[in-house]
Amino acid sequence: MKEKGFAMKKRIVRVGPLALGEGVIIQSMTNVRTERTEEVLAQIGRLAEAGCPLVRVSVPDLPSAEALKVICKKSPLPVVADIHYDWRLAVRAAENGAAKIRINPGNMEPEGLKKVVAACKRADIPIRVGVNSGSLPERLLAEYGRTPEALARCARESVKLLEDLDFDQIVVSAKSSDVAGTVAANRMLADLPYPLHIGVTEAGTVRSGLIKSAAGLGALLLDGIGDTIRVSLSGDPVEEVYAARQILRAVGVDKSFVEVIACPTCARTECDVVGLAERVERLTAGLTVPLKVAVMGCAVNGIGEGKEADLGIAGGKGKCVIFRQGEVLCTLPQAEAEAAFLKILEEMCEERRERK
Amino acid sequence: MKEKGFAMKKRIVRVGPLALGEGVIIQSMTNVRTERTEEVLAQIGRLAEAGCPLVRVSVPDLPSAEALKVICKKSPLPVVADIHYDWRLAVRAAENGAAKIRINPGNMEPEGLKKVVAACKRADIPIRVGVNSGSLPERLLAEYGRTPEALARCARESVKLLEDLDFDQIVVSAKSSDVAGTVAANRMLADLPYPLHIGVTEAGTVRSGLIKSAAGLGALLLDGIGDTIRVSLSGDPVEEVYAARQILRAVGVDKSFVEVIACPTCARTECDVVGLAERVERLTAGLTVPLKVAVMGCAVNGIGEGKEADLGIAGGKGKCVIFRQGEVLCTLPQAEAEAAFLKILEEMCEERRERK
Repeated sequence: MKEKGFAMKKRIVRVGPLALGEGVIIQSMTNVRTERTEEVLAQIGRLAEAGCPLVRVSVPDLPSAEALKVICKKSPLPVVADIHYDWRLAVRAAENGAAKIRINPGNMEPEGLKKVVAACKRADIPIRVGVNSGSLPERLLAEYGRTPEALARCARESVKLLEDLDFDQIVVSAKSSDVAGTVAANRMLADLPYPLHIGVTEAGTVRSGLIKSAAGLGALLLDGIGDTIRVSLSGDPVEEVYAARQILRAVGVDKSFVEVIACPTCARTECDVVGLAERVERLTAGLTVPLKVAVMGCAVNGIGEGKEADLGIAGGKGKCVIFRQGEVLCTLPQAEAEAAFLKILEEMCEERRERK
Repeated sequence: MKEKGFAMKKRIVRVGPLALGEGVIIQSMTNVRTERTEEVLAQIGRLAEAGCPLVRVSVPDLPSAEALKVICKKSPLPVVADIHYDWRLAVRAAENGAAKIRINPGNMEPEGLKKVVAACKRADIPIRVGVNSGSLPERLLAEYGRTPEALARCARESVKLLEDLDFDQIVVSAKSSDVAGTVAANRMLADLPYPLHIGVTEAGTVRSGLIKSAAGLGALLLDGIGDTIRVSLSGDPVEEVYAARQILRAVGVDKSFVEVIACPTCARTECDVVGLAERVERLTAGLTVPLKVAVMGCAVNGIGEGKEADLGIAGGKGKCVIFRQGEVLCTLPQAEAEAAFLKILEEMCEERRERK
């Protein structure tokens, strides 16, 4: 359970079977042409398999909006339709089965926005107000410059446009490719009564995007900010899901997994820490059992520093120590220790799975 | 320049030629046996080549402490000696040329600590007070549990032990393998007048360690907390340097590089974003020119979202648009656009290098 850093009670917003505002929901986005429905559905299938509960699809033109009819019907996941400027596409998306639509209300003509809101009310689906630092109105840029203040202000004004139309099924996002700017703007928006969708936009290639997203989204999640996250990576969207999950695990939002802590190895290292840590990670990758496992290079610091672990192994001179919650379980010759350790680990996983 | 989130003036602590407390200094640690001086020096050489300015070496025994004599003399980088428990090793390290020593004063006998402080005063080197959640005294655990409060309290008490010996060349670290705990403890210590060394200890294998460090250190750095960072990864220490640099770049502490922002691609994508972004990253990897380059999949959002970039390219139907600070520079057939873009990029890098 996520602890919020503020007392504000958030509205729960339903997106298909999902409840935004409870926990933190991972999402990704397809990157094949939306009118190629079979390819889109295949990609959504792979995202679902990877454990992604929510998917967004870009709707840049009418054929894409019409393709949604088939996509939404066959998709195993609720589908969010991403629309820019053209209110007609948003209305068609709502009529064609989208579970949520994402628009930037400030970029839409007011009469069109009214029709979009009416369509979403009829379809009983929420709207994400998505603003980003690249499309701020000149008026705000003149007053605030390209700052987090301008971005947060833009989000609030856009929310107000929907509230004035008596619409409150709102999700809000304020994105920038600048990590510090994204974090600052979202902190300013944390008091809004609506779920926040957080992400660093145009994050970059897989590795640099991963680091930008981990830093920016990590900082926000550690403050209890963010109800749904997307990690933008230029590449296979399935990678976005893995990255998002790892971020949620790193900051302690997702605790249902086997966490492997490994010492960074130093001159004291007396066993193959890297190899064993990787073997343990592989062995336990698919498990949703909350367990902390330590692989430590030496007994000097290993047992102490591994105290927080449910199970640990520490190298020694020819011998390895296996410990459980800081208590030594047994000392074995190095040759036998790894197999024994993995066996105990499997038993513990089995035990906890049964207890669930 | 890093902006501190608080008014407190930090003491500048000198470590060889480096000044801790100005900017954020990257460090790493060797992971070969310290008495194998040639191997240690080879690793330090590779770290220096990778741009690491500070290195730590583990000193678990007397042969290691003696090996420091050669290592410190020949090392191109100032060497920090890492010592646990044994004050004799710390004294020898100070005498043998260490530029800083790292100890956990609470784990050392008081008479020994006096001798260590005296040796560091004679050698005119600072001490890092390194505490971590795995070795908290029972007394604090009983009072606070294994919490960030206990960790921060332990750090303050340990600092006091040195201050009581009239020593003030202090650097402080409080580490845990728990990201949220590390962040919370370091926020509590941000008011100390000494530089903070930040790191998530036992972070794990390369990928999970990278994410934990990016989230934890990113959150702290975004708050202006942290004067030297180490990214702990189980693997080649050179990887730690690359990771640390990427984190500093992601949060905007290091601005002297070519930042490539790439859109995550969607149904609108009309050019090879991933390929081009990776080619641009490779082409500019070694440059220390501050430049923001955008590679966008479509002209619809591309030019707007890439406004913050110094130079950008956006795909179009058979054509690509090249833009500079949001202004269209030229529109070229897709086949010619990439080469033209890379040429303009090289010229801009050249220009800015000359201006420096």
